[in-house]
Amino acid sequence: MAVVMGRDALEAFLAQEFPQVAADFAVEELREDALVMRLKVAERHLRPGGTVSGPTMFALADVAIYLAILSRIGPVALAVTTNCSIDFMRKPEAGRDLLAEVRLLKLGRVLAVGDVLIRSEGSPDPVARAGLTYAIPPR
Amino acid sequence: MAVVMGRDALEAFLAQEFPQVAADFAVEELREDALVMRLKVAERHLRPGGTVSGPTMFALADVAIYLAILSRIGPVALAVTTNCSIDFMRKPEAGRDLLAEVRLLKLGRVLAVGDVLIRSEGSPDPVARAGLTYAIPPR
Amino acid sequence: MAVVMGRDALEAFLAQEFPQVAADFAVEELREDALVMRLKVAERHLRPGGTVSGPTMFALADVAIYLAILSRIGPVALAVTTNCSIDFMRKPEAGRDLLAEVRLLKLGRVLAVGDVLIRSEGSPDPVARAGLTYAIPPR
Amino acid sequence: MAVVMGRDALEAFLAQEFPQVAADFAVEELREDALVMRLKVAERHLRPGGTVSGPTMFALADVAIYLAILSRIGPVALAVTTNCSIDFMRKPEAGRDLLAEVRLLKLGRVLAVGDVLIRSEGSPDPVARAGLTYAIPPR
Repeated sequence: MAVVMGRDALEAFLAQEFPQVAADFAVEELREDALVMRLKVAERHLRPGGTVSGPTMFALADVAIYLAILSRIGPVALAVTTNCSIDFMRKPEAGRDLLAEVRLLKLGRVLAVGDVLIRSEGSPDPVARAGLTYAIPPR
Repeated sequence: MAVVMGRDALEAFLAQEFPQVAADFAVEELREDALVMRLKVAERHLRPGGTVSGPTMFALADVAIYLAILSRIGPVALAVTTNCSIDFMRKPEAGRDLLAEVRLLKLGRVLAVGDVLIRSEGSPDPVARAGLTYAIPPR
Repeated sequence: MAVVMGRDALEAFLAQEFPQVAADFAVEELREDALVMRLKVAERHLRPGGTVSGPTMFALADVAIYLAILSRIGPVALAVTTNCSIDFMRKPEAGRDLLAEVRLLKLGRVLAVGDVLIRSEGSPDPVARAGLTYAIPPR
Repeated sequence: MAVVMGRDALEAFLAQEFPQVAADFAVEELREDALVMRLKVAERHLRPGGTVSGPTMFALADVAIYLAILSRIGPVALAVTTNCSIDFMRKPEAGRDLLAEVRLLKLGRVLAVGDVLIRSEGSPDPVARAGLTYAIPPR
């Protein structure tokens, strides 16, 4: 399915609809078959010991798939997450941004499904993986 | 398994180990077979439209199970979430706190498993449900 | 939501639509708020060592929620599982049937969500828990 | 991590430890970073309408990750699945084998995590995806 919203349009959408969190994220890469999202790690995302918190990684996976879906269907603010299964596998490395790579696996009329691998920038080993389902409102 | 940390001890532990988020939560109820955790909903937890955000509900489920485990094994700061599967089923009601009820289903030597139902205070219908697994460090 | 198909109707539906597996299962109990399904454990369900296999427990959870949904909406053969997250927590006891207790948590126009606890008959400790989502075809 | 059991050794292990199901499966491909498992679809795997049943796809994902783990750590019969989250996205095509491609994402001392994409042979679109966790017994 063709890309109908590019990086700038996605980031502008995020800034407008989710102003509380938009500054945390950047669209790093957008291809036909993948989207990579950056979490600009800051103090407020950390747990004691300096690792990124679980809820922050959940938020990263969630927004990354959301934007991957929007990049294909356009600005549908009302798409909602219905399910997320996430595995936390390693500690993120302290002082590094996180990069989340999305694969969009299904884009149906009602449901969209994708998965995400999260890595610390510069490290090959995944920190977390998640599969998410979004419900897409009738148009 | 007997309760070894009560409500006050759990909240004191949270305040000490997770000072960034402790003020968001309160242990509402602690019984032999269940723990109920309150999210004191505030502006920073909301999405446009006034509903609590997905990452905030994830955080609530995560901390609720964490404290349920600690209530049985004592203050083990290093227990870590390894998996969470969460279903978002309804919109939380605007202007209400959320209550998360935990059932601890397994407390093994290495892994603990529980599930959580999240409701808006005063409403019987669940907003979300989650199953979580924690890895418990060797003692 | 009221029960519109009783135990006999559910079992007759299963026998007609899923003849390969219907003999494995029985509806043990059907209440307003719960359904209990029995797996009549036989040799073909076992792994070496005498425990019930993972795929068999998955099948039990899946059929139990399916029938719980049908008990509320009537015989809709085309409802399909879209997601299942299952935790295996203990070995089933050898030589015992399994009982799966369903809670139907959401029955929407498009999606239904429920969870299941599976126990060995006569034992209080859960062997497995699962959350499942079904997509319901437009009527 | 290096491969320590090749295709023939994995299939021989399966035939010896899981004789009831070994004939359903074949190791199609084994590389440093991936394993592809074939389900030889037969009448007993099908639901009315000719599609492969959910429990059969669960079994395929489960055995594929299991063998991917064993290919790295050797013949450890006692590794057990602790969690599986599976999304069913499309109907398998009638009359085709299924191919499951595993990525092993973590191979720790205690837990191993991988994910699986299942496709109908000859079709690019995934039928299902799953993430699984295995507990590895102390050696």
